[in-house]
Amino acid sequence: MVRRDAEKIYAGKASSDHAIPQESINQLLVRLAKEGKRVLRLKGGDPFIFGRGGEELAELIDENIEFQVVPGITAASGCASYAGIPLTHRDHSQACIFVTGHRREGGEDLNWEMLSHANQTVVFYMGLENIERICSSMKAHGRAATTPAALVEKGTTSEQRVFVGDLDSLPGIIAENEVRAPTLILVGEVVALHKRLGWYKPGQEIKRPLPGL
Amino acid sequence: MVRRDAEKIYAGKASSDHAIPQESINQLLVRLAKEGKRVLRLKGGDPFIFGRGGEELAELIDENIEFQVVPGITAASGCASYAGIPLTHRDHSQACIFVTGHRREGGEDLNWEMLSHANQTVVFYMGLENIERICSSMKAHGRAATTPAALVEKGTTSEQRVFVGDLDSLPGIIAENEVRAPTLILVGEVVALHKRLGWYKPGQEIKRPLPGL
Repeated sequence: MVRRDAEKIYAGKASSDHAIPQESINQLLVRLAKEGKRVLRLKGGDPFIFGRGGEELAELIDENIEFQVVPGITAASGCASYAGIPLTHRDHSQACIFVTGHRREGGEDLNWEMLSHANQTVVFYMGLENIERICSSMKAHGRAATTPAALVEKGTTSEQRVFVGDLDSLPGIIAENEVRAPTLILVGEVVALHKRLGWYKPGQEIKRPLPGL
Repeated sequence: MVRRDAEKIYAGKASSDHAIPQESINQLLVRLAKEGKRVLRLKGGDPFIFGRGGEELAELIDENIEFQVVPGITAASGCASYAGIPLTHRDHSQACIFVTGHRREGGEDLNWEMLSHANQTVVFYMGLENIERICSSMKAHGRAATTPAALVEKGTTSEQRVFVGDLDSLPGIIAENEVRAPTLILVGEVVALHKRLGWYKPGQEIKRPLPGL
């Protein structure tokens, strides 16, 4: 939706292949703004949920650059909607937790005890590479091996694939079906609702909720 | 954005004053759809995060009514963006948790142990009435009394107010400032970032990110 003459700079990244390091993105925002340009920093998802938006803001504030933040649909919301998996449900889940499955080098391990309680939904962002660890750690900390778990690959797109299993079967499902990033992992009782509530068939035409509905 | 001749039916609810009970909303959707109408069920926030969207879907599916789900900006994302409080941050928070502070009658208590770990962000939806309980339970389960905590009243609107304190001071802040619903409660180390990252001044004109930026 940007003007046709806008300069577009790709700053995307995959978990192991950073197109532009975060530090350089921060500096780029500052430099372009100081050149007098109007800069749109466009991110997938929400800037304040695993989006490092806070770090970019801090840089702009240090440099006295005016800005505004526009919230977005985080991957958990988008994938939940298009997979027909409510993140909370009065009967099944009192809380939902978003966590990143990709560990920062030298960073602390995840709080598996916290993540492994019953009756809550856990959404792992970028967890595909650590799936064995995620499933075994949750089981070791008390989550039942039969806890429903889903993979949503390329969620919300016309290539979306949803796989449902449990903490025991998830790693095998990934290998068998060659599931690739970007894939969101959802764990919790609500995942079982997909069978009934899954409504989106990739390839079907989605009628956008436009004015004049 | 709906057509001017669309029939609008208010189905909103406050936590203690349900304009229309959920059961009646479900039935209304079904009845209107069976009359051949195109029905838009508009919700604040995201339908799958404390939105009871799953229950509405189940009803439509039972009645063979076609639908699509459009995800939305959940209150936590909207309020976080407009309060300048990132929900996750590499240095401060590895996970964020959304939970409802409003207890269902006869329902189980919240999992305070899970909610009270350090280095995570907890967002309470509809928690204002139970603020004393929330703060004292988190402290009793090990969260430091000095853990930063914020109230975002009427978040994202031109009447937004943000108050920052800690688990000790929050109840007093609410009383002193006559904080009213809708108010989101955020607890965690990231809340301290508001002082530096808070950017939105209610009343200031927000330039919407329109085509032609």
